[in-house]
Amino acid sequence: MATNKVKDPGLGESTVTSAKRIVNKDGSFNIKHLNRKSGISALYAYLVDISWIRFFCFVFLAYFVLNIFFATIYVIIGVEFIGVQPISFLHDFVKAFFFSSQTVTTLGYGAMAPKGILAGIVSSCHALIGLLSFSFVTGLLYGRFSKPKASIEFSNNIIYRDFNDGQALMFRLINSKTDVMINPRIVVTLAITEEDATHGYKRNFYQLELERDHITYLPTTWTLVHEITEDSPLAKFSKEALKTLNGEFLIMITYYDEAFNEEVYKLHSYTFQELLMDVTFEKAFYFDEEGYTILDHRKLSNTEKL
Amino acid sequence: MATNKVKDPGLGESTVTSAKRIVNKDGSFNIKHLNRKSGISALYAYLVDISWIRFFCFVFLAYFVLNIFFATIYVIIGVEFIGVQPISFLHDFVKAFFFSSQTVTTLGYGAMAPKGILAGIVSSCHALIGLLSFSFVTGLLYGRFSKPKASIEFSNNIIYRDFNDGQALMFRLINSKTDVMINPRIVVTLAITEEDATHGYKRNFYQLELERDHITYLPTTWTLVHEITEDSPLAKFSKEALKTLNGEFLIMITYYDEAFNEEVYKLHSYTFQELLMDVTFEKAFYFDEEGYTILDHRKLSNTEKL
Amino acid sequence: MATNKVKDPGLGESTVTSAKRIVNKDGSFNIKHLNRKSGISALYAYLVDISWIRFFCFVFLAYFVLNIFFATIYVIIGVEFIGVQPISFLHDFVKAFFFSSQTVTTLGYGAMAPKGILAGIVSSCHALIGLLSFSFVTGLLYGRFSKPKASIEFSNNIIYRDFNDGQALMFRLINSKTDVMINPRIVVTLAITEEDATHGYKRNFYQLELERDHITYLPTTWTLVHEITEDSPLAKFSKEALKTLNGEFLIMITYYDEAFNEEVYKLHSYTFQELLMDVTFEKAFYFDEEGYTILDHRKLSNTEKL
Amino acid sequence: MATNKVKDPGLGESTVTSAKRIVNKDGSFNIKHLNRKSGISALYAYLVDISWIRFFCFVFLAYFVLNIFFATIYVIIGVEFIGVQPISFLHDFVKAFFFSSQTVTTLGYGAMAPKGILAGIVSSCHALIGLLSFSFVTGLLYGRFSKPKASIEFSNNIIYRDFNDGQALMFRLINSKTDVMINPRIVVTLAITEEDATHGYKRNFYQLELERDHITYLPTTWTLVHEITEDSPLAKFSKEALKTLNGEFLIMITYYDEAFNEEVYKLHSYTFQELLMDVTFEKAFYFDEEGYTILDHRKLSNTEKL
Repeated sequence: MATNKVKDPGLGESTVTSAKRIVNKDGSFNIKHLNRKSGISALYAYLVDISWIRFFCFVFLAYFVLNIFFATIYVIIGVEFIGVQPISFLHDFVKAFFFSSQTVTTLGYGAMAPKGILAGIVSSCHALIGLLSFSFVTGLLYGRFSKPKASIEFSNNIIYRDFNDGQALMFRLINSKTDVMINPRIVVTLAITEEDATHGYKRNFYQLELERDHITYLPTTWTLVHEITEDSPLAKFSKEALKTLNGEFLIMITYYDEAFNEEVYKLHSYTFQELLMDVTFEKAFYFDEEGYTILDHRKLSNTEKL
Repeated sequence: MATNKVKDPGLGESTVTSAKRIVNKDGSFNIKHLNRKSGISALYAYLVDISWIRFFCFVFLAYFVLNIFFATIYVIIGVEFIGVQPISFLHDFVKAFFFSSQTVTTLGYGAMAPKGILAGIVSSCHALIGLLSFSFVTGLLYGRFSKPKASIEFSNNIIYRDFNDGQALMFRLINSKTDVMINPRIVVTLAITEEDATHGYKRNFYQLELERDHITYLPTTWTLVHEITEDSPLAKFSKEALKTLNGEFLIMITYYDEAFNEEVYKLHSYTFQELLMDVTFEKAFYFDEEGYTILDHRKLSNTEKL
Repeated sequence: MATNKVKDPGLGESTVTSAKRIVNKDGSFNIKHLNRKSGISALYAYLVDISWIRFFCFVFLAYFVLNIFFATIYVIIGVEFIGVQPISFLHDFVKAFFFSSQTVTTLGYGAMAPKGILAGIVSSCHALIGLLSFSFVTGLLYGRFSKPKASIEFSNNIIYRDFNDGQALMFRLINSKTDVMINPRIVVTLAITEEDATHGYKRNFYQLELERDHITYLPTTWTLVHEITEDSPLAKFSKEALKTLNGEFLIMITYYDEAFNEEVYKLHSYTFQELLMDVTFEKAFYFDEEGYTILDHRKLSNTEKL
Repeated sequence: MATNKVKDPGLGESTVTSAKRIVNKDGSFNIKHLNRKSGISALYAYLVDISWIRFFCFVFLAYFVLNIFFATIYVIIGVEFIGVQPISFLHDFVKAFFFSSQTVTTLGYGAMAPKGILAGIVSSCHALIGLLSFSFVTGLLYGRFSKPKASIEFSNNIIYRDFNDGQALMFRLINSKTDVMINPRIVVTLAITEEDATHGYKRNFYQLELERDHITYLPTTWTLVHEITEDSPLAKFSKEALKTLNGEFLIMITYYDEAFNEEVYKLHSYTFQELLMDVTFEKAFYFDEEGYTILDHRKLSNTEKL
């Protein structure tokens, strides 16, 4: 009875029963970092990965904070040095805020303009910082666009159902863009925490055999099927036992993204808590009357009772 | 009799007689998407793929609309707050439009400048939106340039002609740039809709054997030849029957683009309606008196009666 | 007697005695294009490939021409509409030129500013064109930097010398940057025009065997050696006959460029006119007293009489 | 007794006893270049590789120098031509400096503005240079972000310790980012300078066998182990002799970086001076009470006495 047991793929065999999932739903590793060196590159990486809404909030916030900061400086220097007649703190601060925004964006209407050495020096640096910030944002925007991150979507659940004369596990993925994906290949590794004579608990890794682990094009959806034959590492568990296993399906998909001209790797994972029993995936595409193929993206995770 | 029948490459075997072509002439899949999540990335992808003329029209239109939008806001606030003496609605609106264009581009002549808190806040945001927009356009322009999309052109038709002692199908492609293309490789898959006892209609897939499926350099043109030997899936059809087949030649070319330092994949497709009978391709290059190789790009699709 | 004759690598077997070299010294194909579709992408590709001096000349010229163009428009509209008191044509034109440069760069001092609808519309478009132009230049600059074009330099000549008990051909290349080049691999194809019973003249292609065709790192120089054994396609030619051959050594080098994280391919070629007899390459690197390896880039092509 | 002796990987077999290390700690080759052609691309490469602090110092310095340069020109022309009432050299120079900074950033408040032909021409060129400079900086910033340089960190030392029934060499590496690294592979080449009958001193190269030379994921740390079996080229040296060897461990790691969608190669090297005897690496990650994996980056190089 071959069970396709494989070596630790680099995730570590030692574990504890309370161990959290290895890979998060977004494909990142579920690890807390201590004393990691951080810096501008980490900030960049963070700002490339967040959602568009968060990104724009950050940009607006940074713009606001930058203007508050420089407005404070100009108020300290004295608003008369940026061509404003001082009236009250609030009035002066608001004016200085507007002057700051006009400087940082290099608008420079000129209705307010720096006078004297100190205001001159500050506004010189100010404009440079403004330009560098917008260079940074330009790089960020391009970085966000040129990273093919959201192209594959996975069904919410992995399903367990009767298949042929036995049972099978299935999950589905979709090409969430209109781009052509070429040569998608999938490897599914099962990590199960099992009791071990010497170590207490130990993670064992198995490679799951798939009915088909590569295709040539991925224009619509692809359903991956692991038949639970006697060679499967899951053959020894009953349907009830499966739901209680402490383990994880680690999925690595590779494809060539025609829009980005790049070979792309993505990770995904399902835990046994995400296993649905005795359902099947609803068909996600059909032909309309004119003969067009219609793909309904919302049906990706839809299942029907068998 | 081997017919090189292959598994479904991911396109689906189920079909209907009215089914449209699988791959469009531009290499994209002919699929209608329902409920696809859209967003800024999809907008970016769209703007990278459209023609230059459309792109510039979009940019000018967006600039115009943005200025109309902000002009309206300034008119509502009151144009006296951007330093304009109100005269008539039209006059005020035009002035506000110009003020908007001066702000969004960060020109800021200063002849008009915001006064008061409301105009100040609006113009601060306005300038930020302007800079973000131009960052977006900078990314778009670079994205358009760095995507090697238009490098390979295919002949308009696939031809059927006598060749050696039998018949052959041929199509031709050209390197439409002056860049060096290295290691081009081609795979041609034939998809035919055939009647099926159980499914009604079914798509069958065959890989077509080519006289030569890879070369080392592609400086000029390359004519691909599929001889219809008895192993060919097309051997069973008469010349007349071919024209009426419901099927498609799916072509995938891979090459290394020296200008972009990238491995590039492109899809193309011909239907049986694009089959020309008993013609041959006109030669597209020749040597001039000085010994130079002259390549005439306009002759790519030119054919001559045999 | 094996001669390693290979199939046409895609360059065409038909030729004429007056045929020019196939590959230029810069690695591009020596082909004249007729009716090639040109456009902004071709312009971009051209501007990425030219030298820095030419590039900056182009940028300055384009800036000058753009300003001349818009200055003319403002003079036609009337310089009083950009806030200039008209004096003489020359004075007005110069002022309009400066106004144009202040608008296209989005400087907008405001000493001159548009008045009236026509000047307003023109300057709105003007500023947009300016920003788009600088977006284009930003993309160009980054495109120039991110293209690893000048990393490998070849010796000016290929040399023919006594080696071991026979003769050998040698050429040398250098890593012209400080970056690490990994896994360089070389293929040398010989193309010779030979008389042919049926075609008049025909190009034959042979792959030349190299003493060593790949290494792991290329920190300094690499001398490639083809021994003229009896298997060599050149074995049948005398030293005198070699110089008069109508042929070309086509060289393709592939390496991984660590600075750009890219697999890079480069073409090069030598003709038999670039063959130097009975010389050897001068050593290009040595150890200094402190034990440092010193690499003298100027010695790449230096040869010494044997 | 196989010793896995390999051919020169391209580094040169000739050496001297005083020869410095081949590869620096940062992975670059330890070579001094003479007469290397330098230019804007080399400057770009340099500015992409330096630290963020140095980078910003350079940018501020360049901005300062550029403004000093143009301020000098405006003072020579006469500050009255940029709208400043001349008072004293210092006053004029400072004003000209501010005018320069307002022009180069395209701020253009307009309180100062060029008058006359000469100041007009200079400021036109000035603004162009400003925009080109900021295009350059935008490209630089993006180039810095898009280069995955600092993702792998190596332990400071290579260690020598008892292992199984013999001895082993070990070093450790860490994924210093949160990105997923896929398919890391390692090759360790040992270069030792050994006496040679004919050449005086000669570098010999050996490939070291590793207990495991590739894994699938690198989320935390990876300890590489070379057991000193009788096949090892180091088997003939005693523990004391090892420390005095004139040699170097050349390490090449390859992995796919999911954040950059790129195959990345990195070099590293250890000399025998960096060999620590009879210690072991401290464990760098553990599970906390909630079951999270905690990775302490600061422990990478920590060792404990055995």
